[in-house]
Formats: sequence, structure tokens, C-alpha cells
Amino acid sequence: MEKTDMELKQEEEEGAPAPSVERVFDGVRVPAWREQVTVRALVVSLGLSVMLSVIVMKLNLTTGIIPSLNVASGLLGFFFVKVWTKALEQAGVLRVPFTRQENTVIQTCVVAAYGLAFSGGYGNYLFGMSSKIAGQATEADDSQNIKDPKLGWMIAFMFVVSFVGLFSLVPLRKVSRIQQRPTDCTGNRPSANSSSFGNIMIIDYKLIYPSGTATAYLINGFHTPQGENLAKKQVRTLGKFFSFSFLWGFFQWFYKSGDDCGFEAFPTLGLKAYENKFNFDFSAMYVGVGMICPHIVNASILIGAILSWGIMWPLINNQKGNWYSADLAPNSLHGLQGYRVFIAVSIILGDGLYNFLKVLTKTVQTFVSDSQKIRLSTLPVSDEVQMAKQPIVSYDDDRRIEVFLKDQIPKWVAIGGYIIVSLVSIITLPHIFPPLKWYFILVAYAVAPVLAFCNAYGCGLTDWNMASTYGKLAIFVFGAWAGAHHGGVLAGLASCGVMMSIVSTASDLMQDFKTGYLTLSSPRSMFVSQVIGTSMGCVVAPCVFWLFYKAFDDIGVPGSQYPAPYAIIYRNMAILGVDGFSALPKHCLTLCYIFFALAILINLARDLSPKKVGQCIPIPMAMAIPFYIGAAFAIDMFIGTVILFVWQKMDRAKAAAFGPAVASGLICGDGIWSLPQAVLALAQVKPPICMKFLSRKMNDRVDAFINSAS
Amino acid sequence: MEKTDMELKQEEEEGAPAPSVERVFDGVRVPAWREQVTVRALVVSLGLSVMLSVIVMKLNLTTGIIPSLNVASGLLGFFFVKVWTKALEQAGVLRVPFTRQENTVIQTCVVAAYGLAFSGGYGNYLFGMSSKIAGQATEADDSQNIKDPKLGWMIAFMFVVSFVGLFSLVPLRKVSRIQQRPTDCTGNRPSANSSSFGNIMIIDYKLIYPSGTATAYLINGFHTPQGENLAKKQVRTLGKFFSFSFLWGFFQWFYKSGDDCGFEAFPTLGLKAYENKFNFDFSAMYVGVGMICPHIVNASILIGAILSWGIMWPLINNQKGNWYSADLAPNSLHGLQGYRVFIAVSIILGDGLYNFLKVLTKTVQTFVSDSQKIRLSTLPVSDEVQMAKQPIVSYDDDRRIEVFLKDQIPKWVAIGGYIIVSLVSIITLPHIFPPLKWYFILVAYAVAPVLAFCNAYGCGLTDWNMASTYGKLAIFVFGAWAGAHHGGVLAGLASCGVMMSIVSTASDLMQDFKTGYLTLSSPRSMFVSQVIGTSMGCVVAPCVFWLFYKAFDDIGVPGSQYPAPYAIIYRNMAILGVDGFSALPKHCLTLCYIFFALAILINLARDLSPKKVGQCIPIPMAMAIPFYIGAAFAIDMFIGTVILFVWQKMDRAKAAAFGPAVASGLICGDGIWSLPQAVLALAQVKPPICMKFLSRKMNDRVDAFINSAS
Repeated sequence: MEKTDMELKQEEEEGAPAPSVERVFDGVRVPAWREQVTVRALVVSLGLSVMLSVIVMKLNLTTGIIPSLNVASGLLGFFFVKVWTKALEQAGVLRVPFTRQENTVIQTCVVAAYGLAFSGGYGNYLFGMSSKIAGQATEADDSQNIKDPKLGWMIAFMFVVSFVGLFSLVPLRKVSRIQQRPTDCTGNRPSANSSSFGNIMIIDYKLIYPSGTATAYLINGFHTPQGENLAKKQVRTLGKFFSFSFLWGFFQWFYKSGDDCGFEAFPTLGLKAYENKFNFDFSAMYVGVGMICPHIVNASILIGAILSWGIMWPLINNQKGNWYSADLAPNSLHGLQGYRVFIAVSIILGDGLYNFLKVLTKTVQTFVSDSQKIRLSTLPVSDEVQMAKQPIVSYDDDRRIEVFLKDQIPKWVAIGGYIIVSLVSIITLPHIFPPLKWYFILVAYAVAPVLAFCNAYGCGLTDWNMASTYGKLAIFVFGAWAGAHHGGVLAGLASCGVMMSIVSTASDLMQDFKTGYLTLSSPRSMFVSQVIGTSMGCVVAPCVFWLFYKAFDDIGVPGSQYPAPYAIIYRNMAILGVDGFSALPKHCLTLCYIFFALAILINLARDLSPKKVGQCIPIPMAMAIPFYIGAAFAIDMFIGTVILFVWQKMDRAKAAAFGPAVASGLICGDGIWSLPQAVLALAQVKPPICMKFLSRKMNDRVDAFINSAS
Repeated sequence: MEKTDMELKQEEEEGAPAPSVERVFDGVRVPAWREQVTVRALVVSLGLSVMLSVIVMKLNLTTGIIPSLNVASGLLGFFFVKVWTKALEQAGVLRVPFTRQENTVIQTCVVAAYGLAFSGGYGNYLFGMSSKIAGQATEADDSQNIKDPKLGWMIAFMFVVSFVGLFSLVPLRKVSRIQQRPTDCTGNRPSANSSSFGNIMIIDYKLIYPSGTATAYLINGFHTPQGENLAKKQVRTLGKFFSFSFLWGFFQWFYKSGDDCGFEAFPTLGLKAYENKFNFDFSAMYVGVGMICPHIVNASILIGAILSWGIMWPLINNQKGNWYSADLAPNSLHGLQGYRVFIAVSIILGDGLYNFLKVLTKTVQTFVSDSQKIRLSTLPVSDEVQMAKQPIVSYDDDRRIEVFLKDQIPKWVAIGGYIIVSLVSIITLPHIFPPLKWYFILVAYAVAPVLAFCNAYGCGLTDWNMASTYGKLAIFVFGAWAGAHHGGVLAGLASCGVMMSIVSTASDLMQDFKTGYLTLSSPRSMFVSQVIGTSMGCVVAPCVFWLFYKAFDDIGVPGSQYPAPYAIIYRNMAILGVDGFSALPKHCLTLCYIFFALAILINLARDLSPKKVGQCIPIPMAMAIPFYIGAAFAIDMFIGTVILFVWQKMDRAKAAAFGPAVASGLICGDGIWSLPQAVLALAQVKPPICMKFLSRKMNDRVDAFINSAS
């Protein structure tokens, strides 16, 4: 039933949350988890996985820049199954209707599968091991540090490393009595109370996972039952902003014929600010992400951007030639880029470690108190559900938590899985990469859950998957440990792969769980679908790479059609890495220690100060992301948050009802545009125009040049 | 009283017009015309005139591109008198409150005064007569064709030519029983019926005069009585879009450091289309103008743009080297530009002549029937008012026409004025410019009303004042008539001045009358204010020019601070002009005849075909404007019309209530931005960045150049 504005306003004033999505779906049965994973879903997933893997692989080998195709997979999944079911319906043989849960399962499966085409490192670490790339580097091109691609070991490697991530976060998914930590200082809706059981990231921390949320919104929109007025309006709003964002992406494309061209290079705040990466780059996606993220997250990101790109990097840059050599390449880790990457990692590690330990403490406490408690019910989850349900106000949260807690993945599966896969990995990997000793892998798997936790947590806050950053960290740590003379380069690259797979999978898993949570999909069906998707990916990704590798001779050759630019970059990093932390520029390590400590202190301040104050202290994890990425997306997101803030001030009820629709539309439209954009890139269709920004002085010189040339 | 949306919708469905503006002002007395022209208004006007004249003069002498400052003068007038009256109010000595009529009077006076700084030709024809400019031209630098600036003759010249325009259109202002000709084919509100008396342009033709309408909207907004809900909402909408448009203008400024830079040069439809001037140039002003103009006008302009820049000019360009020499400067009237200017003029003349004759026929008929009729009332206007009032449905139209017809300017003043001023002019001008024979001036004044009518009519449709085009026509006609050996260049330039003054004043007058009509100002007070303003301008403009001329030595020197670029262009045109129409490129004259005839035929078709069909035939006058100006503004306006059209389809009542507010906000915001922009130009502050658009190929070369340079 539609509510009038008046009713909505009243609800809002009474502290009730935004209009309910789940009420709209009240008449629709939630299928059991086995019904969610259908054969047709898996067939469609396989088809999409192959298609997206080809796209990602080609981008890997050409520009190395991979857009997120998660939203696209959700949409395409819907489209194909819809066509399928429509056809069957016409033929009169349709048995099972298409549900939003099934849609989510497809999306999850496809993301898991095509994700491996990126995290498998075919464009970076894995291909960086080959003799082709080694030949281009100046050092360490000995056989000890080379491993040429072969289909066999690649598939084995994928199977061995890709499943660990799936299990890494599961053991932490059942904890109790965690202090609830709202991430919003503007009085977001009250969430599950402090004594609830459930998933830390999604139920307790209520992390946003902007892309996951947007995808869920899209999927819910597709499957909204007919005749719901408010829902229809929301879907229409979603559609409008989706179209706008898609067309805007398309429009932007025409003006980006080269680097430093197009709207991304728009010096919105002036050329000087742009040099320090401060500009609004007209990204509809990140404005949407800013509208979904809590205000404090956006504010934290902006503060981080100002602190790093506004103050610290210019100051450190002044020490060029003093703290580090002045003739380094601009992105050398020996120079400014080193400070950027390692300080960001320190903060993320500090924040992540703090939260990980906090959660761990609570988990242990729960285990202890659980074992002392006599279970009142024989049904394994009902009491948890009951306990979780009572104090919750929002109908949506209530319903979602109920479903989310129903089909938990058994603890023994998670822990057992992790141990078994780790063991297999520890035994197998040294055979594939001799320099990678078994104790390296053991250590990697011991710390991996912490890093996976960090990445999943950061991604939930800001939508950035920092997997490659953790990979770089691994290159440094394990490369240095192995040493230059014991195949340290190969060991570094291989451990990068191990680490990247785990942390990348972990954050993808959480994004998908968020989508699942919001579409009432069973966590168990999601997990199964991830396992199936990962298995697909382990075969599809190496095969697609192998195809490219065998079909084109010039793969990895600079200046050719497939230069695979990141392969040599990663190899060079590994060559640096074998020298260990001594390779870092001056004072970098000291600064890392300081920021690591600061991250922990700020977290302590957040937790120990009164709630009102604590909620308004910036979140270190969010602050760290722009340190490395640049300030532009921080400005985009801040604009999103300002738009939402103004909207909330003007009409709180409307903002609550339509804000997520607008944000999701913006995110998804841009997300889908990635697909035709990728196809255009594959077809070698380049944008025709460069929108260039020159200073007046430079423009006069360029004009003179153009006139003399023509 | 505010009406609910429901009521508005109902009114709309019953064929009633948009919500009334004048009902809001019902409680406010309309002051008598003498009360509208106050001393404080004239003092403020004088101050503003001097300020704006200085700005226009400096722009004249630097870039030669003058933005319209009409809106700015309305706003500044409001601001200064408001400050004045507030101060008096605080002191307790305020006698007469500030009214919207007084505001309109100031605006009218200032526009009349500063307008002469442009139409006086200090940057083009008048300065083009000087020996400084003649020295730069290759021919005709003999004393016969030179007239150096002197304060005395300039003031005399201004006084002699500037008042003719004021009287030229007045005699036509009282006609009756004109076939009403709605300019809208989408069922605009029913207007005064076919037998109404009143002003042709404003009451019968209901021309839009977009800038005048927008200014009236702004002035009405400023003076809206407190407590009116809908009006308040409209003013808030106006304010919002005003701010947006202003800030957008400001933002655009930063990226336009040179020619072919910035948003004006944005190849929105691709580089190829941009070469033919087809692009959306993000001008908030013209989108607003498009929202105010009737759909058929916008459609006509777009059709004209496609016909000319899309088809004809490219085709003629293919004949380069055949129809005209290939090595001409791009803007030479001997080449493509000749076709553009003269074909546009032919259409405008054809359309204008047709409408002029139509009106004249009706006028003569009225005189005849009037003289046969016995007057029923001794009051000079009341019967006209009665007759005009009866069949009118809209309250606003009713009220406005009543006020507009009350204080008509007596016929004998108008006709007598025109004859006296013409006589003075015919006697005086040959003394100032010996080659300008008295019969040239006589002929000029005989045809001037037709051209003034054309310009006022075209300006009412599209907001473009084409005065300089008529001036160029005069250069050709009279220059050729005088001949090269009888000071044809000087005669041409002087007659250009005569013609430009008349047609420019006529369209300004009509814009102001439209503003006056919509603010219930008396036509008499408007006329008086125009006369006073023109007198001010006749002294202020030459003095300001004299100041610049004496203060800076390098005026008119190419490459200097004050190059006065159009002075040499006009002189060169005059040098061409003495050769007469034989100087035109091949087939140009034939094409002109064809389009002249077409314009008349299309008008006949519009009038003779059934009303429904006729209303949807494009208007030749509107089609002709882009022939010469380019297609970009046609696209801006068409976007405006599409926005309004969609809005009308979605919510007719809201579009009617808020459409004009949005449009006026867009027009006025950009209009006011002209002022700080002009000040920045005067202060030599140049934009810092060039947003440049290069083809991919050219961009690669430019990138290589930049890299090699740095």
C-alpha cells in the first residue's frame, strides 16, 4: 500500500525508518535455499562468466584498467533468465517463476567467476613471472625467478588459492553481544541492538557496501510485484537516474581520446588543485556512492584526501632530492608513491587490526558464554532469531535478519574448509613455485583473515576493493624474506597472488552477502553459488588467458596491441621488494609506524568517548583510501553526501524514500555503461575527441603550434 | 490567495490560462504615469548609464563583443532605489514608495542611454571613418572618405539620428481589426480577439520579446506584495534558477581563456557538426529564451538552422573556387559569408515587408472606417478600452491591456515628431558628412520604418537584435549609390549609423514596452523615460568615447590594448560596398530573390491555409536568424522548448505556473553575469584555463608537442 507524504512524514518524526521495501514483497514467498540455486541460473551464469572473463582478460592485457562489472552481471542475469522464462511461459511449460533470490544467485556466481580473471593476475603478478616479462626487466631474469605460463599449473594454482578467501571470513560470521557501532553521526535508523547475533559486517556494523546495496536495489526493483504505488515510483526514479547515468557515461566517453582528456581530467577546482588530484570528475557513480554512504564516511574520506593530497604529499614532494632521489619515475615506490602506498596500508592495517581484535575478543567471550549456557530449543537457530528480532524497530531489518540468520553456513564447514584448503595449498604451492617455501604460505594463511577482514571492512565503508594494495604488501614482505638469491622475485609474485585472491574474494563475498541480505536471499545459497562460481572461474579464466596467449604472439611486448602494462610493473615491484623495507624512501617507515598508531588511537577515541562525540570522529579506514587513490573520488562522494544532506533538510521523508533509488540509479547506470565501454575498447573503437585542459599560457603556445602545423 | 494544484489543474482543463500575476497585485495601486517618472529614478538612471556606457565603450574598443546588459540595468536599478528608499524610510522621510512601474522606468531609461554607446558605432562605423583606421585599409584613404572624431559633431550626430527610431514605430501603434495571428501551434491561451485595438506587436501579435518578458518577471518578483503563497514560490523558483544560471556563467568563464575554448566551443554533437556550428553550447540564457518562446518559433529556428548550416552552406562551400575565390578571408562578404548575410536579410525583408504591408492595409482601413464613425464618448480612450476588454478571457491580459491602452501617445506627437526629427536630420547630416546627400537620408527615412518594423518583429520572435545587419545593408546600398569617387565609403558608414540607430532603438523600445506591458507601466511614462534616456545617451556616449580617445594613444592600433577590431571590418565592408551588388559572389543575388519570394509565399500560406495548418507552418523571420548567426543558439532554444514541452505533458498546470519563472531565472542569471564578466574584462583579468577540443589525431600531435616543450 502506498503511504501519503503525510504518513511518511509522521513516521519519520516518530523516529521510524524509511518506507519499507519488504512490505511490498510481503505477498511473495521466499523460496528455500535449494530452490534459489536453479539449473537455469547456473547455465546463465556460466555463459555470462565466459563472456565477462573474455572482456576482463582483454582489458587486462591491453590497458590493465578493469572497471567493476558486478552491476552488469546482475542486470544481464535478469535479462537472460527473463527471456528464458518468458519463452517458456509462452510455450506454457514454465514451472518455477523467476525470483529475485535466483537473480542474486546468478549475480553472485558470475562475480565470483569473472573476478578470478582479474585476481588471477593474468595481467599482473602471474604474467609477470614469465620469461617474456623478465626479459624486459634489468635484473633477476634467471630461471629461479621465472615461471612461464602453462595451462596445467595455472588451473591448479587457481583451485588451490581461490577457495581460501571464501572460508576466511565465515568463522567470524557468528558472534554475539558485540557493541553495536553505528557508522553514522546524523542519527541513522536504530539498528539491531547490541546483544544481537549475526553477521558482523552486515548486521552489527551495518556496513553499506554501496555497490552491493545498489545492485540489491536494482534487483528488488526488477522483481517488485505489480500494483505497488510507492515501489513503482521508486523504480521509476531508479530508471530515470539509471538512464541519466548511463547516457552521461556514454557522453563522457566521446571526449576521452587520450590520457588527461575528458571529464575525468576536468580541473573543476583549478589547474593547481587538479595537479594534486583535487577535482570533481563528474563521476555519476561516486556521487551515487556518496549518497548511499553515511555522512561520516564521506566526511572522513574528504578529511583524508585533504590531509594527504592537500598537505602531506606536497610537503613530502618538497623534500624531493633529499628524502628520495629526484630522478625517479613518478610512480616509483622508491619515491612519493612509496609514502602513499605504505602509509595508506599502515592506517588500514591499524584500523583493521583494531577492529579484528575487538571482534575476536567478543567472539571468544561468546564461545565461552555459549558453552556455559544451556540451549533452550532444539531448533538450531530459532532462539538466535528470536533474540535478534525483539529489539528491532524497522520491519525491513526485522524481516531481513530473520531470513539472513535462518540458513547460516555451519561453523564446522567454515573452519574445516579453511583448514583443509590451507593444508592443500601449503603442500601444493611449493611444488608449483619452488622459492615459495611452505612456511611462507603458512604465515600468509595465518595473517590472511586479518587482511581479508580489513579489506572487507574498508570495502563496506567506501566501495573500494584494495586487494592489489595487499598484494603489493605481500610482494614486499615475502620477497624480502626469501631474498634475492633464493628466487625472492618469484616468491614475492606468487605470494602476491595468494594474498590478492584471499582479500579480493573476501570483499566480493561481503558485497554479495549485502545484496543477498537486501534481497532476502539465503546466505547458504549465496555461499554455494560462490563456490560454484569460483570453480567455474578456476577453469574459465586460465583457459581464456591461454587462448589469448597462444593466439597472439605479441602479448606482453611494449607498444604492441597487448602490452599487459602491469605485468612489468609488478615484476619491477618484486625486484625492489627483495631488498626489503630498506628499499623504502627516507622516513617512510617512521611515518608508517606513526599512522599505524594513530589509526588505533583514533579508533580507541571513537569507542571510548561519549557516543555523540565518538560518532563524529572520522574513521581511519575511510581516511586512508584517498591517501593512495587520489582526492577526486572523495570530492564526488562528498558532493553526493551534500546533495543527500540538503535533500534530508528539505524533505526528510522523500529523501528516505527516493534517496537510495537515486543513488542506486547513478551507480548502476555507470556500472552498466562499463560493459559497452569494454566492448568498444575490445573492438578498438577509440573516442574521437579529446577534451583537454590547458593553462592560458600553454594554450597560446599550443594554438601557435596548431596554426603552424595546419 | 494560493490555489491548490487541483484547482490549477481544473482551471487548466477548462481552458483557463495560467495562474494570474496581476491578481497578486490587485491590492496595489497603479501610479499615474507622471508618478512613475520620479526624480530619484532619473538620478539613478543617469548614474547607471554612465557606468554601463563606460563598460560598453571599453568592450567596444577591446573585443567588440557586447553582451546585453538590459537585465543588469533592471536589477541594479532596483538595488539602488531600494537602498535609497530604505535609507529614507529609516530616516522617516520616505514619501513615495518604490513601485514596479518606477523600476521599469529606470530600466527603460538606462537601456535607452547605454544602448547608444553601442549603436553610436564607436567601435565600428563611426570610428571606422577616422584617419587612424583608414590608414590601415588598402584603399580609399583620401580625405573625402575620412572624418576624424570630434566631440562636437559626434554629439550633434547622436542627437540627430537617435530620436527617429523612437517615433518610427509609434504611428503604427494604433490599429484595429487586425487578423489576430497567434504564433503558437500548441494551443496557447486565447488572446485578444481579432477586432481588438491596441499595439500590433504586443497586443495583436502577442510577440514574446523574451528578454523583456524575463525582465518584467524579475521586476514583478521583486515587488510582489508579502504573503502571496504561489507568487512567493514562483519568486523562489526564479531565484533558484537565477543563481544557478549566474553561477554556471561564472563557472564557464574559467575555462574560456581563448578563442575556441570553453563550453561555447563544446562539440556536443561531434567535431564535424561543430565545424558547421551545430553544437549545444550550454548557454543557460538561450535555453531560457527557448522556454519562453512559442514552440513554433523554436521549431522554425531549428529548421532554418538545418536548412542553412546543415544543407545550404556546405553545398555552397563545395563551390568554393568556382562561385567565389578560394583564397578569401573566412568572413569576407565576397565569399560564403556574403551568402549568409544577404540571404538572411532577404528573408527578413520579405517577411517584414509582407507583415508591414498587411498592417498598413489594416491601418488605412481603420482610418477610413474611423472617420466615418461618430464617436460615442468624449473620453478619448474609454471606448477603445471597452471594446478591447470585452472578449478577453484572461484576467492578466484584461488588466494589462486596460492599463496599456489608457495612456497612449497621441498620434500627432508621433507623426509630428517623426517628420520634424527627419527634417532636422536631412538638413543637418549633409553638413556633417558631405558625401551623404540629403536625398539619401530622405530615402533612408522613408524605408526606415519598414526595417524598424522588421527588426522589432524579429526581435519579438527570437530575442535577436539584428540592427548591425541592417546597418551593413545600408553600407552596401548607399555606398554603391554614392559611388567610390564621391566619398562612397564615408556615405556608406554614415548611412549605416543612421539605419542602425533607427532599427536598434525600435527593437529596444518594443522590448521595453513588453516589460512595461507586463508590469502595468504606462506606455507614456515609458516613452518619456526613453526620450530622457536617449538624451542622456547622446551626451554621455560621445563624452565617454572622447575620454578613451584622448586618454589612450593606441586606440585602433591592431595588437594594442584597444584594437577596436570591428572598426576596420566595417570600413572594409564600406570599401567593398562602393562596388555595389556586383561585389557579391556568384548566384548570391539570385538566391536572395528566391528567398525573398519564398518568405512572402510562406507567409501567404500561413495566412490563407486553415488556421490549424497555418499555425504549424514555420515562420520565415525566425528561420532566417540562424542563417547568419549559426546553429548553436537554435539548438539551445530547441532544448528549452523540448524541456517545456515535456513539462507541459507531465504537468500542464505546474509548467504554466513555474515555466516562466524558470526561464526568466535562466535568462536573468546569465544576463547579470555579463556585468562582473565585463568588469573582469576591463580589469584585464583573463580566465586561467582553456578547455580545448581536439580530434584524437590532433591531440596525439599536441601531446607530443607539449612533451617536447616541457
